[in-house]
Amino acid sequence: MKLAVLLFDDFETLDVYGPVEIFGRLTELYTIRFFSLHGGLIKNRHGVQVITEQLDEIEKNLDIFLIPGGYGTRIEVNNMLLIEKIREVSNASQYVLTVCTGTALLAKTGLLDGRKATSNKRAFTWVMGNGEAVQWDKKARWVIDGKYYTSSGVSAGMDMSLDFLKDRHGVDLAKRVAVEIEYIWNRDKDSDTFIAE
Amino acid sequence: MKLAVLLFDDFETLDVYGPVEIFGRLTELYTIRFFSLHGGLIKNRHGVQVITEQLDEIEKNLDIFLIPGGYGTRIEVNNMLLIEKIREVSNASQYVLTVCTGTALLAKTGLLDGRKATSNKRAFTWVMGNGEAVQWDKKARWVIDGKYYTSSGVSAGMDMSLDFLKDRHGVDLAKRVAVEIEYIWNRDKDSDTFIAE
Repeated sequence: MKLAVLLFDDFETLDVYGPVEIFGRLTELYTIRFFSLHGGLIKNRHGVQVITEQLDEIEKNLDIFLIPGGYGTRIEVNNMLLIEKIREVSNASQYVLTVCTGTALLAKTGLLDGRKATSNKRAFTWVMGNGEAVQWDKKARWVIDGKYYTSSGVSAGMDMSLDFLKDRHGVDLAKRVAVEIEYIWNRDKDSDTFIAE
Repeated sequence: MKLAVLLFDDFETLDVYGPVEIFGRLTELYTIRFFSLHGGLIKNRHGVQVITEQLDEIEKNLDIFLIPGGYGTRIEVNNMLLIEKIREVSNASQYVLTVCTGTALLAKTGLLDGRKATSNKRAFTWVMGNGEAVQWDKKARWVIDGKYYTSSGVSAGMDMSLDFLKDRHGVDLAKRVAVEIEYIWNRDKDSDTFIAE
């Protein structure tokens, strides 16, 4: 399966590389490429400087499109050229996964209208403002509605990615990956234990 | 505090970006830079392509030197120019943190001789072969011996990084970071629950 990761300046480090570690372990099943609106160097406030391809060069028969969160989403949500591209690529993808405030970017396209979705509870009011017709789930750690997988903050993207593997390939393979990366998989998608803390 | 991350081709994605997310959250306390032996573009098998500075340009009064694992360590452990640089930088650093088979690179320098250390249990025999005078701990999730923090595989680097924050700044700050990134912090350093699975 072909997985494309959207990057933009000030993306959240672990929103991206948590899922990339999980899918990347399965080299026989997943090929990962990194894209940004204009291609080239993308930076974030953790000092990460990563090379990307241009979004226009993305495959047309993409299997998975991953949209991370991070401070950058506050700016990119108003970048209508990017939002239009996200709509195009999401429509052409078999599955779309969002982590944290990456859900705001997807919501802004209108593609989540009438669908259930979630995002980081610490940024929830702002995220909801970018998709008033979305059925926002304020309790879930991640939500699956058709082809859309949306998750709460940072590590929730890893839990959701493992759940995605479970849905596609069975729970044994998902568990094997979690054990290989020595990660405590929080499997309860309906209850975000980090809300109240 | 100045944190330098060592990169090399085929580093393990989450060994690097897990700790980077954790330290990166504290922009007021930590500045992160990425280095490789020759500088420039470093790639791994997860499709990550990242820009690095040359190791010769590293600060002399470094606070933390982070050495990740990954398939690349199998090659780099025989790169004596790199091993010599790791020895130099480690000697000049206040703390040295290793994740997974990154411990093999540090062990190869001889700096762990007579000290307690650990690494990924799935690669333990190979790692031990690179430091026969090290007091290898086969049960620990991570080990602290003086300025050296060494950990088991992948996510163990995140648990260890949170523990490092606890040691420097108190448990409340470490807990705050874990909650912010919605990560289930495995705080038991002495027992690697992933050994038997």
